[in-house]
This record gives sequence, C-alpha cells and structure tokens, in this order.
Amino acid sequence: MNRRHFFKMAAVGLGGLSLSSVTQNVSAKENGKPWPFKIGCAGYTFAKYNLDDSLKMMDRVNVRYMSLKDFHLPINASDEKIAEVLGKFKDRKITPYGVGPIYMKSEAEVNNAFAYAKKVGVKLIIGVPDYELLPLVEKKVKEYDFKVAIHIHGPDIKVFPVASDVWEHVKDLDERLGICLDIGHTVRSGLDLIEDVKKYSSRIYDMHVWDVNKADKSGWCVEAGRGLIDFAKLFNTLREVNYTGVCSLEYAKDMSDVLPGVAESIGYFNGVLKCNA
Amino acid sequence: MNRRHFFKMAAVGLGGLSLSSVTQNVSAKENGKPWPFKIGCAGYTFAKYNLDDSLKMMDRVNVRYMSLKDFHLPINASDEKIAEVLGKFKDRKITPYGVGPIYMKSEAEVNNAFAYAKKVGVKLIIGVPDYELLPLVEKKVKEYDFKVAIHIHGPDIKVFPVASDVWEHVKDLDERLGICLDIGHTVRSGLDLIEDVKKYSSRIYDMHVWDVNKADKSGWCVEAGRGLIDFAKLFNTLREVNYTGVCSLEYAKDMSDVLPGVAESIGYFNGVLKCNA
Repeated sequence: MNRRHFFKMAAVGLGGLSLSSVTQNVSAKENGKPWPFKIGCAGYTFAKYNLDDSLKMMDRVNVRYMSLKDFHLPINASDEKIAEVLGKFKDRKITPYGVGPIYMKSEAEVNNAFAYAKKVGVKLIIGVPDYELLPLVEKKVKEYDFKVAIHIHGPDIKVFPVASDVWEHVKDLDERLGICLDIGHTVRSGLDLIEDVKKYSSRIYDMHVWDVNKADKSGWCVEAGRGLIDFAKLFNTLREVNYTGVCSLEYAKDMSDVLPGVAESIGYFNGVLKCNA
Repeated sequence: MNRRHFFKMAAVGLGGLSLSSVTQNVSAKENGKPWPFKIGCAGYTFAKYNLDDSLKMMDRVNVRYMSLKDFHLPINASDEKIAEVLGKFKDRKITPYGVGPIYMKSEAEVNNAFAYAKKVGVKLIIGVPDYELLPLVEKKVKEYDFKVAIHIHGPDIKVFPVASDVWEHVKDLDERLGICLDIGHTVRSGLDLIEDVKKYSSRIYDMHVWDVNKADKSGWCVEAGRGLIDFAKLFNTLREVNYTGVCSLEYAKDMSDVLPGVAESIGYFNGVLKCNA
C-alpha cells in the first residue's frame, strides 16, 4: 500500500461527505436508541368530558398514560369512588401515572394532595404550590418519597410562570421537587424551548406537550405540527437528556369537541417518533 | 504528508462509518428536496357522509385535495347541481382534483365518465373499465387529453387486482392511461409496495394511501402508523421517482365515525413528511 492507494481509499470512503454530514450521521446513529419516554394525555385535555368518555377517547387514539385531574376524581373522593375510578382505568388498559395539576394554597391543600396521590397509588404530583408552601412540600416529598412536578403556566399566572423560576426555587431543595415543563407556555413566554429542556432536564419530571401558534402571550393551542414547535428536535433532545417520564398531550383547542385535534396531534407525534426511531 | 498521516486522516474522516451509514447519509441529503406530491383524501373515505359534512371534516384536518365520488355528485348530475357542488368545494378552499373511482362496464359508462369529468372541470378520472373497453378509453383520453388512473383493488375484485396487471394492459396504449396505486390493496396482495412504486412510477397518476394490518386478503384498514406500511420509505420513494400527483387517504375503518381515524392518519403523514423534509 502506498500514498496513492490511501488517497484512493479515503476518497472512496468519504464519498464527498462534509464534516456537517458526518455529524448528521452521528446523530442519525444516536437516533437508533429507543425513546426513553412515553406518550400520554394530561387529564385537563378532557375537561369538558366525564371520565368514561375521556378514557374511551384515550383508548381510541391508543394512548395508555394519563394524568388524573380532580374533575375526574375529586381530591376528597371516598375510597370506594377511588376504587371505582381505578377500575375504569384498568378496564381500558390505561395507567394513571400522576395526579394534577393541583393548586395548593394552604397547608391543608398540600396535605390533602399527598394523601390523595397515595390513595390513587401514584408517586407523582403535578402541582402548583404557593411559594411559601415549598418547605412543607419538601417535607412531604421526603415523608412520602413522591415527586412533585411544579407546573409552569407562562405569562398567564404569576406563580411559577417558567422553568427557570421553578429551578431557582427548588434547586437547593430535595431533588424530588422538580418541574412539569409545559412546552406551549414556555414558547408563549418567548423562551427557547430546547435550551430550557437542556438546562433543567435533571429536574423535569413531567411534560405537557402541545403546539402553539405564536411565541407570545397571544399564542394558543393548535393541532401538533401546525404551530411553531419542532417536535422532532424536542423528542430528540428528550432522548439526549434521557427523559424517562411521560410527554402528555395537553390539548386546549376545541375542548368541547376535542377528539379530532387529539387524534391529529397523537398521529403527528407517532409519525415524528417513527421517523426518528 | 506520509502514510501515517493519511491513515490518521482517513480514520478521522470516516469516523467509524460503515458503507451502509454512508448510503444513509446520501439519502438524508436527498431528503432536502421539497415533496413533489400533495396530501388529499379519496371521496370514498366519506361514503357515509353527505358532501357538506365531508368537506367540513376535510377542512378540520386541513387537507385541501379531494377526489370526488359519485355519491357526492351523481354521474348524471345537472349543470346546476355540478355548479352547486363546485361552489361548496370553493367555499371550503378544497380542490376536487379528480373524479372516481368510476366503474365502467359499457361504452355508455365510459362516455358518461368523460363527459362528467369535463363538466366537473378535472383532467383525471380514477376508473375501473372492463378490460374490453380499454380501446375506447384510449380513444377518449386522446380526444379529451385526460388521464385515467386505473384503480387496483387487490384480492377483492377480479378486474385489475394489482399494478402489474394495469401495467401489462396499458403499457402499449396511450401514456395517459395509468394506475391509481392503492397501497393497502398492494400489500394485501402480498406484494412489495416499494418495488411496485419504483417499477410502475412512470404510469402512476393517483395514489390511495392507507395503512393495513395484515399482508394478505384478511388485512384491512387501520390508522396510519399502526399497521405494516413504512410511510417514510413510501414518501421518500415517491420523491425519488418524482411523483407529482396526490396521495389521497382512503380510510375505510370506522366509516360511520371516520373523523378521529382520518385525523390521526393525516397527523401521522404530517409528522413523517415534516421529519423527512
């Protein structure tokens, strides 16, 4: 073998690849990894429906993880009612993976939220505690060994608008206190979603995923794929940071006739996940 | 530069790439081209609905191309009725891009089909003429300068079951005689869909796209992404062969409550198209 031979080998091997195309290929290789997260629905998507109809729609779109919202099972529900509701989930082969969002404005509401989650049999509360209740919430996560994913609501609500605000308040507390990263509200806050996922990934315990049509407060929910969010990039980033929770569709358009938009959004997620698998 | 240097360069440049990963990268580069085809719906999807409700659903899922089926506009419709129907399409910003499938079992039915398409203002008939009528159909495509896409129906119907059968019958006729490649029926016939697309692409003038759960006669329609068909591969192949027609969803599951499955399928197509764009 001589220099010319090596030259020829290199030319054949590289085949005109630029550095960027090599990089592209490396990420294509990384894409071979299985998705670490699951697709679900936030109970809030079905705010206008009873639980039976909600679970029927979940089944129709073949989504098996749902966060349980209080309008489908009140915080003060009896043990019998809880058992009945859990039976309905089981019948539809759907797993309630967490409860919430639950707003907590008093010590009693914090205590009730944890008691409720325990009775439901989940170890994740999606919650919005008032700031001054965080020490109590921290005490409770230690006592119960639950996670609390603090839901962010963008420019609409003063309490925990964005992920950085949750992060600043919980970073020195027990690590079971974290974030429910609502991606639509993140974009409505004018933030770079991918940056926020990367920055705060170690404390992201739930995700509310939905597409949004404008990157400011006037933006609202649209069918996934019709708005601003690059879901391929989002899902690939979640794989990079090894997010092992649920990406729950929170669909808040046409809430009285929600199924077509839910189905289109879930179909879109499936298409994106398939192509990057 | 010496041999060792070349060795190093080659190692850095190749970065562990196998031949297959280089090929993968080349197709990723080709993927930068825009999609040459459009997404639509076959009128048959809405067999259980009137035209108003069908167009409303099309609008809801944001699909702008539809093939017109006779149950939404009879072949013998008056000029007034045709004008009324075209007005409804226009109001919903949906384009009727062809008519059919129209079964043609007599000379009169061939003549009527062409007269109908002309009145509707389209230059594409999706049709199933009896074999012995092909000479007349050829005469008509020359006279009208229309295309006829012969619909295949897999193992269900004896007339034109698969693309190769259409090809054999039309390859020596006017080139405006071609195929409506129904992908579900192709798979139900035990054929390799991608091979058929490649083999017959020069005569494919319409596509019926839907997912199928089994690769034999017992297979039937499921939501796109839940079945056997690799839509990323299909769409990329259609780009390679520069298919410039419409990929029309023909959804034949839950036909009396069709919107959720249509929405999930369209969402899935959108996700796949977005990722490979």
